[in-house]
Amino acid sequence: MTLQWVSHESLVENHLIDADGTVDKVKVKELGEYPLVARLCERLQQVFGVDKRVLVGLGDDAAVLEINGVRLILTIDTQLENAHFRSKWMPAFDLGWKAVAISVSDVVAMGGKPIAALLGLGLTGEEPVAFVDEFYEGAISLCQSTGALLLGGDTVRSPIGLMVSSVVIGVVEGEPIQRKGAEVGDAIIMTGFAGEAAAGFWILEQGVNDLVSSPLLQRCVERFRRPKPRTNALQALRSFPVHAAIDISDGLVIDLQRMATASKVQITLDLTQIPISQSLKEAAKIVGRDASSLALTGGEDYELLISVSPSVAGEFRQALEEVGIPAHQIGFVSATHPNGEVVGKSPNGTVSALHGGFQHF
Amino acid sequence: MTLQWVSHESLVENHLIDADGTVDKVKVKELGEYPLVARLCERLQQVFGVDKRVLVGLGDDAAVLEINGVRLILTIDTQLENAHFRSKWMPAFDLGWKAVAISVSDVVAMGGKPIAALLGLGLTGEEPVAFVDEFYEGAISLCQSTGALLLGGDTVRSPIGLMVSSVVIGVVEGEPIQRKGAEVGDAIIMTGFAGEAAAGFWILEQGVNDLVSSPLLQRCVERFRRPKPRTNALQALRSFPVHAAIDISDGLVIDLQRMATASKVQITLDLTQIPISQSLKEAAKIVGRDASSLALTGGEDYELLISVSPSVAGEFRQALEEVGIPAHQIGFVSATHPNGEVVGKSPNGTVSALHGGFQHF
Repeated sequence: MTLQWVSHESLVENHLIDADGTVDKVKVKELGEYPLVARLCERLQQVFGVDKRVLVGLGDDAAVLEINGVRLILTIDTQLENAHFRSKWMPAFDLGWKAVAISVSDVVAMGGKPIAALLGLGLTGEEPVAFVDEFYEGAISLCQSTGALLLGGDTVRSPIGLMVSSVVIGVVEGEPIQRKGAEVGDAIIMTGFAGEAAAGFWILEQGVNDLVSSPLLQRCVERFRRPKPRTNALQALRSFPVHAAIDISDGLVIDLQRMATASKVQITLDLTQIPISQSLKEAAKIVGRDASSLALTGGEDYELLISVSPSVAGEFRQALEEVGIPAHQIGFVSATHPNGEVVGKSPNGTVSALHGGFQHF
Repeated sequence: MTLQWVSHESLVENHLIDADGTVDKVKVKELGEYPLVARLCERLQQVFGVDKRVLVGLGDDAAVLEINGVRLILTIDTQLENAHFRSKWMPAFDLGWKAVAISVSDVVAMGGKPIAALLGLGLTGEEPVAFVDEFYEGAISLCQSTGALLLGGDTVRSPIGLMVSSVVIGVVEGEPIQRKGAEVGDAIIMTGFAGEAAAGFWILEQGVNDLVSSPLLQRCVERFRRPKPRTNALQALRSFPVHAAIDISDGLVIDLQRMATASKVQITLDLTQIPISQSLKEAAKIVGRDASSLALTGGEDYELLISVSPSVAGEFRQALEEVGIPAHQIGFVSATHPNGEVVGKSPNGTVSALHGGFQHF
């Protein structure tokens, strides 16, 4: 889920709403995604937040609910044609794969083991039956690779285009890892390489057609179309005293900002330490974009950002690498900060606030 | 969920697919909803059906999964603008209410207690913020009235119109009530009155405008816009040896057909015993439709159809009526039947097969 907790006070401070809370007539696209979600969080917290069964409510990657001693992680994600993908370049198999993958990633980011998935699929009716078969084969493959069961779902007619909702249920033993909890001094570890998925999106959107000859470009496209949630990071996530984690869905900086906000800290990124893959360099050139910008703001990487005590950071990275997950320290938690902040330290030593990433509205 | 188990064999028999299963190039709308879903059921059953954690898979109102001894019921439903509702006559509050209500109804039909809900909301961005607030207030109200927690959800931009996915998680103690299990001789009990919701839909769709002066018509509209899942039937459902149950989502006959198919029985409806409310009679006249047809095929009533031993049928009905739920015996299980069948006995004593109801494709 792409949700963020923002206090009513900070919305007022930032002139996003009036002090008396009257935004009723403002349009959703004018208010923007985060203030919108913040209002919902506040309302739901007010009504249901007191219930002891809710261990983690809105404002994290997923919700955590305790039922008869079992701690369930629940998350829902929706993808829509022409908002998240185009049918001309998104094969049915990949659509099914990705729908489940992005929800599994949310469960993993909270330290949970994915157990089962449900899908809601909206079809125009014009699709060949083979499209539906391939969609489900993609979802089945992803489930099998992560140990989750595909329980099925709902199929409806969607005159307005393809639509997929995915729900993943996981189980967490002990405390779920949240966005909040990052401590001053912590190392910020990132798995894998950010920006490749966004580069892949632009390759597809621009119709770059020498893909066959370039495995580097193909890699970016694959990263976008078939993201692999980091389920094999779970062992390391649970055996080290991880303070906070989040997955990169909307962009490295924006998702790190969410961790900073939830943890009320300032995070300093060392811009010289953000790993830029050969694939990203090559793809960025082809699509005419800056590789570093794609890495910082691209989104849809479904890599993990983890805040961990500096005393175990080296060992933690090694544990990830031992299961085949590249891991880099890209920054550290530099100070406490009431609203949370992400700053970048340039090669020349200057430090400035970072922004940018995907917002739905 | 609107899913039905149909065997590969019956598809072949009915010439819906070739004996070798090749329907790849057929369009979804040509194949139709049930054969489509049947194919998915078959495939998922093949891959995941052997897993012991899946107590009930696809092909029922909801899936049932056992995790660490807790039996979870999971269901997902999707509603789309211009397929399920029109924004000009569906208030935001009712949209939120109904989204959760229809999923809660699935959980109740399986004898489960609803615990929590998640929502996926797609917005164009042009909606006023008040629309989103009211949508969530509707969902909150429904949750509060059924004891479920609203955990939140995902909000995305939907350039193609309003979209809502609802997920409800419930818990069932002991055996979940399924569509299969109806036994020859059983009484078929229906709660409440069918057809009113469909009449309400036509009142809205035709723009009937003397609603204010007619509480009878208002009742139909309310039945469509704010269905009330029968959560207070749970006590009776769990204390009597109920053999099978399903909720009416797509229509009395079509949903009873699902029970008949799953149970491999013939169900005989006594057409003189289908209760037709004053509201339905009045509304049917106004919208120019036959009241009995609306009752039999209308859909979206979210009433329960229950198959129960005739020896306890009277007591069971009384238990329902004691908690304020009207309950009528509308038929009985008349024979075994390999594919399942629903027949209607007319006032003149003739018996004929019944069909009809909502199909997405």
